[in-house]
Amino acid sequence: MGDYRRPDVLVSTEWVDQHRSDPNIRLVEVDVDTTAYEKGHIPGAVGWNWQKDLWDPSRRDIVTKEAFERLCSRSGIGNDTTVVLYGDNNNWFAAWAFWQFRIYGHDESLLKLMNGGRVKWLEENRPMTTEVPTYPERPYKAKDPDYSIRSFFDNVAEAIRTGAAILVDVRSPQEYVGDLLAPPGLPEGVPVRGGHIPGAVNIPWASAVREDGTFKTFDELKALYEGKGVTPDKPVIAYCRIGERSSHTWFVLKYLLGYPDVRNYDGSWTEWANRVGAPAKVGPEP
Amino acid sequence: MGDYRRPDVLVSTEWVDQHRSDPNIRLVEVDVDTTAYEKGHIPGAVGWNWQKDLWDPSRRDIVTKEAFERLCSRSGIGNDTTVVLYGDNNNWFAAWAFWQFRIYGHDESLLKLMNGGRVKWLEENRPMTTEVPTYPERPYKAKDPDYSIRSFFDNVAEAIRTGAAILVDVRSPQEYVGDLLAPPGLPEGVPVRGGHIPGAVNIPWASAVREDGTFKTFDELKALYEGKGVTPDKPVIAYCRIGERSSHTWFVLKYLLGYPDVRNYDGSWTEWANRVGAPAKVGPEP
Repeated sequence: MGDYRRPDVLVSTEWVDQHRSDPNIRLVEVDVDTTAYEKGHIPGAVGWNWQKDLWDPSRRDIVTKEAFERLCSRSGIGNDTTVVLYGDNNNWFAAWAFWQFRIYGHDESLLKLMNGGRVKWLEENRPMTTEVPTYPERPYKAKDPDYSIRSFFDNVAEAIRTGAAILVDVRSPQEYVGDLLAPPGLPEGVPVRGGHIPGAVNIPWASAVREDGTFKTFDELKALYEGKGVTPDKPVIAYCRIGERSSHTWFVLKYLLGYPDVRNYDGSWTEWANRVGAPAKVGPEP
Repeated sequence: MGDYRRPDVLVSTEWVDQHRSDPNIRLVEVDVDTTAYEKGHIPGAVGWNWQKDLWDPSRRDIVTKEAFERLCSRSGIGNDTTVVLYGDNNNWFAAWAFWQFRIYGHDESLLKLMNGGRVKWLEENRPMTTEVPTYPERPYKAKDPDYSIRSFFDNVAEAIRTGAAILVDVRSPQEYVGDLLAPPGLPEGVPVRGGHIPGAVNIPWASAVREDGTFKTFDELKALYEGKGVTPDKPVIAYCRIGERSSHTWFVLKYLLGYPDVRNYDGSWTEWANRVGAPAKVGPEP
């Protein structure tokens, strides 16, 4: 992992296998498929359901500070615990959880993503269990939310008006041009129209990973994003459909490439497309 | 139609049959099923496609003033033309067109909805044709949009904060409580969450019509809405999923019952539900 700007935020499956019994480390699995954890997970890992534990449908928002504190407490996570996140679909929601840990101020040096995620662990035939562990509750004190890594609708509207930030649409090219309203197999949250936020560059999240699910090298990632005009000299706002794939790109730009100002627009296309008066573009950018 | 506050905005199928060749009258069909018009329509009627002619996906908005003027012009509609609107699904999109005519200032006394809509016409075995008429272009001058009959997101947020307006959710009870995300058979525009705007009263649009598609009497309608607390002494905001069913209720409250301040929130549930931070309630109101 040597060349990344913050190589310490990534750990390998091998490292996790060696440290998974360390009491100062808590493994957390977060999946797109919310039934995956109960079918099998890394021994000792707790399972978080993104829809119940990391999302509040009563406000269409990230969970409150109080709910996040309760979630950590009941998972045996204290403010000094090293949290290792992993999940299916190339860590989409593991990255989403990482982003929320940062919003609520968990120390950066105590947060890790397992490179390659659940799939790589399975392909390497490492130990799995269906046993759900329990840990003694620990007090957890979250900080007030740090929204310097989050964009809201108005911030994005301002960004396209002023051109002060670079917008990256990390969905598939078919979603970007307006032919598809959601990735295949995911029917919920279909917006009323297709297309993208005018001026956004399309760099699908998957461009950042190899076939085995691990991240590309620093040089490959730098060439990919800079080659499309996504440079570190301006703020960058990433979005997708509901904000989870863009957490993945947020992680890449913020930690692997070390861009100073990267924000996840978690309202993403579902919020933007359904908003009366919000401009959208169909087809490719010129 | 005698007891309604503005009985002149409704015409019967019989009246339309007698007046359909009057050169001062233009019949306009607007359907949910955008293929219905070409399969057959009232002789002389022009067909408007709501998705292309009355909606602008590049802004998720009603059409611009200029586009509305072009639409009327090419349909042979002048500012002095009497426009009779009708369509399928109990005039959902005919009411939507009526609402846009009012936003762009077409004289109220020159706007009519055909009571019972397309279905009633068909059931009475009145003449149908597949012939598409053409009319000489007429100059049409729209007024600047009158938004006193439209609510935007911020108006609704303000209304639930202050309690200054009555919110009416006109979707089905299943959509209202959060069990369904869209009416059956209409997959596009599925919001990321179910439920309703807190405090909204659920009075499905269909409560206002009889089995044959015509409107209930003044007394029946008054009992229905006032019985649920929707009274004329406060502003009323109606919403549904994308704003067309609520146009129907807007028409009922504004013209048949004569409420002084009725607005259509056309962003409706698709906008509200997808908005980060917007409160929502699942299940019945207390």
